[in-house]
Amino acid sequence: MVSVQIRRPIGIFDSGVGGLTVVRAVRAALPEEDIVYLGDTARVPYGSKSPRTVERYSLACQRFLLDHDIKLLLVACNTASANALPALAGASSVPVIGAVEPGAESALRVSRRQRIGVIGTLATVRSRAYESAIAARAPSARVVALACPLLVPLAEEGWTDGQIAGLVARRYLAELLALDRDIDTLVLGCTHYPLLAGELTEAAAELAGRPIAVVDSASAMAEAAVRALTGASALEDGGGKLGVFVTDATRLDELAPRFLGQPWTSFQLVDL
Amino acid sequence: MVSVQIRRPIGIFDSGVGGLTVVRAVRAALPEEDIVYLGDTARVPYGSKSPRTVERYSLACQRFLLDHDIKLLLVACNTASANALPALAGASSVPVIGAVEPGAESALRVSRRQRIGVIGTLATVRSRAYESAIAARAPSARVVALACPLLVPLAEEGWTDGQIAGLVARRYLAELLALDRDIDTLVLGCTHYPLLAGELTEAAAELAGRPIAVVDSASAMAEAAVRALTGASALEDGGGKLGVFVTDATRLDELAPRFLGQPWTSFQLVDL
Repeated sequence: MVSVQIRRPIGIFDSGVGGLTVVRAVRAALPEEDIVYLGDTARVPYGSKSPRTVERYSLACQRFLLDHDIKLLLVACNTASANALPALAGASSVPVIGAVEPGAESALRVSRRQRIGVIGTLATVRSRAYESAIAARAPSARVVALACPLLVPLAEEGWTDGQIAGLVARRYLAELLALDRDIDTLVLGCTHYPLLAGELTEAAAELAGRPIAVVDSASAMAEAAVRALTGASALEDGGGKLGVFVTDATRLDELAPRFLGQPWTSFQLVDL
Repeated sequence: MVSVQIRRPIGIFDSGVGGLTVVRAVRAALPEEDIVYLGDTARVPYGSKSPRTVERYSLACQRFLLDHDIKLLLVACNTASANALPALAGASSVPVIGAVEPGAESALRVSRRQRIGVIGTLATVRSRAYESAIAARAPSARVVALACPLLVPLAEEGWTDGQIAGLVARRYLAELLALDRDIDTLVLGCTHYPLLAGELTEAAAELAGRPIAVVDSASAMAEAAVRALTGASALEDGGGKLGVFVTDATRLDELAPRFLGQPWTSFQLVDL
C-alpha cells in the first residue's frame, strides 16, 4: 500500500504587493511550507474604499485561494483584516488569521505604558479595529490612530528616504502626537509602511523627544501561523515553493522585490 | 397633437472624482445641458493599472452611461482616453470625446516653439498617446513625457500647496526638464493635476528660469463638446441638471467640491 501525502499550501492575500512582507516573514519562520500568494493589484488600494467594497473584494480573494486547496489563510492586508475579517472567517473552511490581532499583540508586548499610536489607511483607521483588538486585551490601554493616505503611494514610488519622505513622515506623526503626546509605541498598520520604517522611526523620536518603539504585523502574523499549524498538526515539508498570482501586472517587477526582500521570480495573471 | 421632446444628457466618466473638473468646464460652456457623471471610485486609480484592465473598466463605465441614454460621451480620464479610446469608440452608439486629443490641441495652440512636456499617470505616459496625438497634428513638434504617480494622492489628500507639494512638484519637473530643457508648454495630463497647477506652474518657471505655459484638457474638452453637439444639432435645454453616480462613496463629500468648484449636492452609489 502506498500512502499518498497531499501537501497543502498556506494562502496569503493582500490588496497589492505589500503583503509580500508577510510572505517574507512566514518563509523565515516556516521555510518548508508552500505558499500561494494573491495580490489584487488591479483593485489596489483597498485603503480608500468603503467597508462594503473592501469586504466584497476580500471575499473574492479568499474564494480564489480556497480553490487552491489552502490549509490556512493569512489576510496580510490590514484594511481587509480591519473591515472584512468576520465575513472572511464566516465564509472560510480553513482557519483565518488577520493582520490586526497580531499587530495589537505585538504593540502590547513592547509598550511599557500601554500608550499606543496606530497609523494606517483611511479604511483601517475608520474601522477602529486596532482600538477594539487592543481594548479586548488591555482595557486600560490608550490608543490613538491616524490615517496616512500618502504613505502607500510614497512607498510604491520608492521615495522611502530623503527630504520628501522625511517631511511627509513628520507631518503625519506630528498630527498623531497631537492626539497623544505620551505614546511609546507606534503600530505600522499597513503592509506598505515597513518600507518607510526608517523615516517614521526617526520622525517619531525627533518629534517626541524620546525613542518610540515601532512594530508591524508581519512577524506576529508568522508566529500566529506557526501556532495555528502546530496546534492542528498541519506542519508539512512542501519544499518551500512560492506561487504568486496577481490581478494586474503593472510595475510588478519593480515593486515586488522591495517587499519580498529577495530577487523576484515569476507570477501568474488572473481575473477574479 | 402633443410633441414630446426627449432631452438626452451628456455622459462623462472618470476613474474617480477628478473628472468633475471636466463637468465644471462643460457646465460653464453649456449651462443648459443635462449631465450624467460616473466616477468609478471603487476601482480608482486607473493610472497604475495595465492597458487591458483600464480598457475593461472603461468599457463597463461606458455601458453604464449608454444605458442612461446619453447623446455624447466624454472620457474625462486621461488614462482611459490614452489606453481605451479605440475600444470605447468601437463599442459606442454615440460620439466619444477623449481627453488626450483636446489636450494635445490646447498644447499646440499655446506652444510657440512646439516643445511640449506632458505629465500624467504611469498608464497614460506608457501609452504614448499624447506623443501620437501631437505628432499627428505637428510632426515636427517635440514631446517629452513623465509619469508622476504621487500627484494624484497628493491632490486627494488636499496637500495642494505648501512645502511638500512644492518639493514633489520640483522633483518631478526637474526630471521632466532633464529630458528637454527647452519645453515652453506643460500639459497636465490627468484630471487631478489642475488642483496642483499653482505649485506646478511655479516649480516649472523656477527650474526653467522662464515662464512655462500650463494647459489641461478640461476646457478643450468642453469646446469639443460644443462643436460636436452644434454639428449634430443636438444642443438642448434640459435645465442643466447634474446626476452623479459613483461605485464607492468614501471621502466623496470631502473630495468632490474641490474638483467641482462649487458646493456638492448628492450622488447615487452603483455597482458596475
